[in-house]
Amino acid sequence: MPNEIERKFLLANDDWKSEVTRSVVLKQGYLNSTKERTVRVRISGEQAYLTIKGPVTGVTRAEYEYEIPVSDGLALIDLCEQPLIEKTRYFVPLGDHLWEIDVFTGANEGLTVAEIELTAEREAFIRPAWLGREVSDDVRYYNSSLIHRPFTSW
Amino acid sequence: MPNEIERKFLLANDDWKSEVTRSVVLKQGYLNSTKERTVRVRISGEQAYLTIKGPVTGVTRAEYEYEIPVSDGLALIDLCEQPLIEKTRYFVPLGDHLWEIDVFTGANEGLTVAEIELTAEREAFIRPAWLGREVSDDVRYYNSSLIHRPFTSW
Repeated sequence: MPNEIERKFLLANDDWKSEVTRSVVLKQGYLNSTKERTVRVRISGEQAYLTIKGPVTGVTRAEYEYEIPVSDGLALIDLCEQPLIEKTRYFVPLGDHLWEIDVFTGANEGLTVAEIELTAEREAFIRPAWLGREVSDDVRYYNSSLIHRPFTSW
Repeated sequence: MPNEIERKFLLANDDWKSEVTRSVVLKQGYLNSTKERTVRVRISGEQAYLTIKGPVTGVTRAEYEYEIPVSDGLALIDLCEQPLIEKTRYFVPLGDHLWEIDVFTGANEGLTVAEIELTAEREAFIRPAWLGREVSDDVRYYNSSLIHRPFTSW
């Protein structure tokens, strides 16, 4: 079963900005956003994906992702729960890993988080100086939570 | 936008059985089953599909279907709401149309329905003598309803 192991952090400062190698605008919504399962529709640049995730177990989560036609993605976004999640994702390579720094707009304007994907729960990684507090276990920062309780309402 | 136009009927008798050309065992579950949208995982014989449907408008419904690996399908079925829908689908060609007759097992044992897919809401079709009362508009017969209120509980 494919699994996603992700750790999520706040940002201590803006120093990561000088290390960005690329960025992509993401727009995503949820066809289901319960703790048992999420079904996400994501428009990423000019591509679209349908992603199903199982319940969270520690920092590990079963994940199934399928690329779909963008025209389908745009129609499926309209079927999603509101509000949508809108953010720009900036990529910062560091050592063997790729940091993804999400700067939210819309209902979650003001929120920025850094994520790293690991292949094992105890895998080591470099902690850059711009990294802030870890929020991997904080449900409020789940994207599926941010539609029910957006950052601007905190 | 791809649309599904389907009409659903009960069966008046068993005479359709002699006209069956093939059948397939279906096992399906729902990752979401609200009136705004359904997300279905279906194992159909040796194939698996992920299907998203929008809200029902008359007998028309937006539908997006993607074939996925069977191994994914089997894992996704485990993430679905319980109970699952289990049925054998029998195919009966008649004129320009193909009737699908679903004989349910499991929690919906005893239920049999015949469905026809049309390309337009007012499209004409042959009504065979084995066709019973139309239940297209009866929410109880939606597969997504049959998981919340299975036929054996009626």
